[in-house]
Amino acid sequence: MKFEIKDRDAAGRICKFTTKHGTITTPNLMPVINPNKMIISPKEMKKLFGTEIVITNAYIIKKDDRLKEKALKDGVHKLIDFDGTIMTDSGTFQSYVYGDVGVEPLEIVEFQKKIGSDIGTILDVFGKPDQTFKESEKGMKDTLRRAKQAAEIKEEMILSTPVQGSIYPDLRFKCAEELSKIDGDFYPIGGVVPLMENQRYSDLINVILSSKKGLDPSKPVHLFGAGHPMIFPISVALGCDFFDSSAYIKYANDERLIFTWGTEKLEDITELPCCCPVCSNYSADDLKKMSKKDRTIEIAKHNLYVSFAEIKKIRNAISQGSLWELVEKRANTNPYLLEAFNILKSEENKDWLEQFETISKNKAMFYTGNQTYHRPIVHRIQKRLLERFKKSSNVYIVLPESKKPFSTHYSHEIKQIYQKNNNVNIIVDSSLGPVPIELDEMYPFAQSIFPSFTDEETERKISISFQNFTKNGDVICWSDLSTLDELDPSKEEGFNFDLRRISAVANIQFGSGAGKVLLGGEVKIIKSKKTGKIRNIYCNGKHVLSMRAHDGLFTLKGDGAKLLHNKFKKPLLRVAVNQDAIDFVKEGKSVFAKFVEDCDPELRPLDECLIVDEKDNLLAVGRCILNRREMLSFNYGVAVKTREKL
Amino acid sequence: MKFEIKDRDAAGRICKFTTKHGTITTPNLMPVINPNKMIISPKEMKKLFGTEIVITNAYIIKKDDRLKEKALKDGVHKLIDFDGTIMTDSGTFQSYVYGDVGVEPLEIVEFQKKIGSDIGTILDVFGKPDQTFKESEKGMKDTLRRAKQAAEIKEEMILSTPVQGSIYPDLRFKCAEELSKIDGDFYPIGGVVPLMENQRYSDLINVILSSKKGLDPSKPVHLFGAGHPMIFPISVALGCDFFDSSAYIKYANDERLIFTWGTEKLEDITELPCCCPVCSNYSADDLKKMSKKDRTIEIAKHNLYVSFAEIKKIRNAISQGSLWELVEKRANTNPYLLEAFNILKSEENKDWLEQFETISKNKAMFYTGNQTYHRPIVHRIQKRLLERFKKSSNVYIVLPESKKPFSTHYSHEIKQIYQKNNNVNIIVDSSLGPVPIELDEMYPFAQSIFPSFTDEETERKISISFQNFTKNGDVICWSDLSTLDELDPSKEEGFNFDLRRISAVANIQFGSGAGKVLLGGEVKIIKSKKTGKIRNIYCNGKHVLSMRAHDGLFTLKGDGAKLLHNKFKKPLLRVAVNQDAIDFVKEGKSVFAKFVEDCDPELRPLDECLIVDEKDNLLAVGRCILNRREMLSFNYGVAVKTREKL
Repeated sequence: MKFEIKDRDAAGRICKFTTKHGTITTPNLMPVINPNKMIISPKEMKKLFGTEIVITNAYIIKKDDRLKEKALKDGVHKLIDFDGTIMTDSGTFQSYVYGDVGVEPLEIVEFQKKIGSDIGTILDVFGKPDQTFKESEKGMKDTLRRAKQAAEIKEEMILSTPVQGSIYPDLRFKCAEELSKIDGDFYPIGGVVPLMENQRYSDLINVILSSKKGLDPSKPVHLFGAGHPMIFPISVALGCDFFDSSAYIKYANDERLIFTWGTEKLEDITELPCCCPVCSNYSADDLKKMSKKDRTIEIAKHNLYVSFAEIKKIRNAISQGSLWELVEKRANTNPYLLEAFNILKSEENKDWLEQFETISKNKAMFYTGNQTYHRPIVHRIQKRLLERFKKSSNVYIVLPESKKPFSTHYSHEIKQIYQKNNNVNIIVDSSLGPVPIELDEMYPFAQSIFPSFTDEETERKISISFQNFTKNGDVICWSDLSTLDELDPSKEEGFNFDLRRISAVANIQFGSGAGKVLLGGEVKIIKSKKTGKIRNIYCNGKHVLSMRAHDGLFTLKGDGAKLLHNKFKKPLLRVAVNQDAIDFVKEGKSVFAKFVEDCDPELRPLDECLIVDEKDNLLAVGRCILNRREMLSFNYGVAVKTREKL
Repeated sequence: MKFEIKDRDAAGRICKFTTKHGTITTPNLMPVINPNKMIISPKEMKKLFGTEIVITNAYIIKKDDRLKEKALKDGVHKLIDFDGTIMTDSGTFQSYVYGDVGVEPLEIVEFQKKIGSDIGTILDVFGKPDQTFKESEKGMKDTLRRAKQAAEIKEEMILSTPVQGSIYPDLRFKCAEELSKIDGDFYPIGGVVPLMENQRYSDLINVILSSKKGLDPSKPVHLFGAGHPMIFPISVALGCDFFDSSAYIKYANDERLIFTWGTEKLEDITELPCCCPVCSNYSADDLKKMSKKDRTIEIAKHNLYVSFAEIKKIRNAISQGSLWELVEKRANTNPYLLEAFNILKSEENKDWLEQFETISKNKAMFYTGNQTYHRPIVHRIQKRLLERFKKSSNVYIVLPESKKPFSTHYSHEIKQIYQKNNNVNIIVDSSLGPVPIELDEMYPFAQSIFPSFTDEETERKISISFQNFTKNGDVICWSDLSTLDELDPSKEEGFNFDLRRISAVANIQFGSGAGKVLLGGEVKIIKSKKTGKIRNIYCNGKHVLSMRAHDGLFTLKGDGAKLLHNKFKKPLLRVAVNQDAIDFVKEGKSVFAKFVEDCDPELRPLDECLIVDEKDNLLAVGRCILNRREMLSFNYGVAVKTREKL
């Protein structure tokens, strides 16, 4: 099995996942195949929906003599006539529904091996939501024991070991942590079907979060039994990689159509609210008039078209950096899902999510409601402003929100203020909180679109951020020229706004003091002739930084890296690689995760970093793809893209 | 031309629209056909997207000798090979883009008649958003003059007379009012393209609202030049019936894909976030690799699949009574659109919207954000509580929100309270504001789904509603039995909660005092054996009311109608029909709009009503389909469904 991160957004990721039957992209959806009754065959699914992986049930195969014989003889791929990756389930869900299933835990693992399953699942103990903590703990421990035993006999099969623990976050976390120590490969989050069936999304989110927090991040996570696209975006944003759908056929049998906002009975629909091939080809009346069998097939196809489109939508959103918007939009369509969102507003969860958040994105952030201000990127920038921004004094001149970039819109006012006193902080009271004018071109301040009225929760949060930032200072609200009278004149010699901007962005991006380190000499600034914006920065004749037009952040140049390496002590900004990687890095090749020895815990995906050897010799400058925990866990894929060897 | 309302939600409506070329359903979308270059032919559009109506440009046809000759000889339907309804435009938009177009206003109307256009448009004067009031007024007056002249020569052609007036609500309203006096048939709202292009949605909404407020409601309204599905739901909710799309091909030429949340460049897309036949058949890479021509055609098809699906989605939402949810969901996807929503929160606009709102809906209302509390149905119920609810005393016992129905959840508490004092008001502090316990099964109180935390604006609004309702009263918050100690014992003899519920609902539904009128005798209540809920109410042996299980509101029976007719004076609850309709109504046939003489201005769609003759003799009891202004304007369609002749 190979599993590597190719792209990312929120705590979600696009990965390449390789089994004996090929390489597929995640997030992905496995339709459930009933070997007894294939309404749509896996082959047809591949053709119609681009299905790359399916899941079928080893327990059902084993119970049926004919299926069992054929599977043992020809293998499960021939049995269901599919040449892609096949996962098998073990009978756990049947034991939840029907009680004892009469199969031994190791027996069903052996059977899955024998029929050539790519991913085989242990017989875990389904943790029901109404169990007590004690009962859940016992089931969880049994699951762990079975996982350990199965791992010893798995051989070539990718072993799927579900996380259990019912609705108890502590048990889920514990189970996840312990599973990560066992030689399993693939982590379903089990026991969630009853939560989804009862729209208990708050519980579901808590279960996903506590499981993910404990799991080894380098292995695929599967939300077991989740087949409704409504919950795909949020689950991916929290780190799930796989879903499986029996919903498509279960709902079709019941004449229910799946949509991204929920499920609707055909009888309640007058016009099909969808553009999929089925809904473009037939009217609601056409479907109602069909034979039951044909109708079921067409609805099942619709359900899969919609489900796979949501997967594509999610992957596209990850590439664009707009996954949070998709998640928030989906939450706005269902009150219970929206309610669950409150869980993501806690400091603890925001701290956890922030680790995965890239430094900048391809797309501007869009406001969608009071969730937006709680995004990890806003959480980060608010924190960094308090920790890393170097204030000029204790005086704050506040300008109201305006057109962006603020410094262009307010160029006249800024000039007037600095002429009187350039030791003040000029800040804009924006929808993302206080924005020091030096940072106005930096992501996400410039790259965000908010309505002129947001909402009262956001207004309150902005006001709190503002108060925290200006605490114990003199706050002067700019209204007109007379505001200047309130200012004591004070002037720093050689004041230069560009220098202040460069220093401020460097501090936020690389850490307190970075500006001073990088600009400690004779500075020369090259601007774009076309846009007038800062492009390249030289210090004592050496190229230390380039400012990127699209996010207002820096690309760290080799000479800048040397300065930071010299003044910032280990582990700051470092990714340390082991002996085996040194020669590759010196040739300018990227750092693979398996060669990473250690990493600054403050580095985030897409952060600039110093690539060093184990003795802290600077080898190169690069850009992180992974965060620390990921670098230390993954066996495959690039951890750091090397940009400039030194 | 025939135009009649078949179903409705918000201020939106599903209508049947009949021209010489057939009957179609609105809301509907007309793809723009360039007679010089048909990338997708109208015939193919009909096959692929179910296109029923298209729009082409008479001015372009007239300017081209070949097209002109063919159109004059064979007619416009042959010219573009389409046998459905064809609307033609006049060159106004070209005059906006290129200046003078060298055609006389009446000349182009005559030409449209000659080529057999079903709907021909006058050469109106395009009101640009950056014009002064004076300039806009002049253009608006010129438009009115041209409309008047054109109306005199229109003959059989359906005459389209656009509303102009730039972004000035007074001018739009005035123009709309004046147009309604002229013998035109079809009202485009013109001059909105620059507003949409610049995402000036607040201006757009104001333009639609002020135009609609002035227009004759019995004629189709077309948002001229609006082809992006993002604004379809809100425009329909405010009363627009038609859209036209040149966007599908304009964007396709520019390699941009239309989605309900906006537009994206193909180059920015890694995976197609859509399930339409084009996006199900091709990957983003497939599209990128195609020839420019093939790519343009495929993107144009995608754009039309998505646009027509949104039209179907809107019509389905109207049938289900969930149009506001769709509108709010769409608003949540774009900050500028969300900002525009604030306009709908004004009292004046809520009052206007409330007139169109049906009394109840098929579906529960779903919370989607702080817009939800501003829906017209909430506005109405809050007002009626203040105006129509008869309080037992000045004491309010407040129970916190709980599972629904509240009276079942709190049956124990209610019993305890009433045992001590049954002259108090028991109210639940709900997400829809204060709910008197007697009304807890009534739409929308029981039929609404809110998260347990809504948002701070809604919380504040709820609190204001609560204070308004309990003003100058004693408010006691129920916590436990000890709350009872705060109550003075007081008991009304023969107290009966069912009677109180019936009376309270009747007052809210029919007006203050209705409960007293309907229950002024010996009352017998029949309940459902299965659910225990009130079903039928008899007074002095006569069947006066039936309570509907799905919305907790009453169906008014003949004997109840007689009581209300006797005590409630004209025009209360009345729909008065003219002489010609009396015999039909007496046979139990429905009342067509053209026979309505007058109507209680307080009656709303789906309200129970008394059908009377001009001398106020009671003929029958029925259910309104239209509101007063609609009944008096429409020439076609049912105004009241007669239920019981008397």
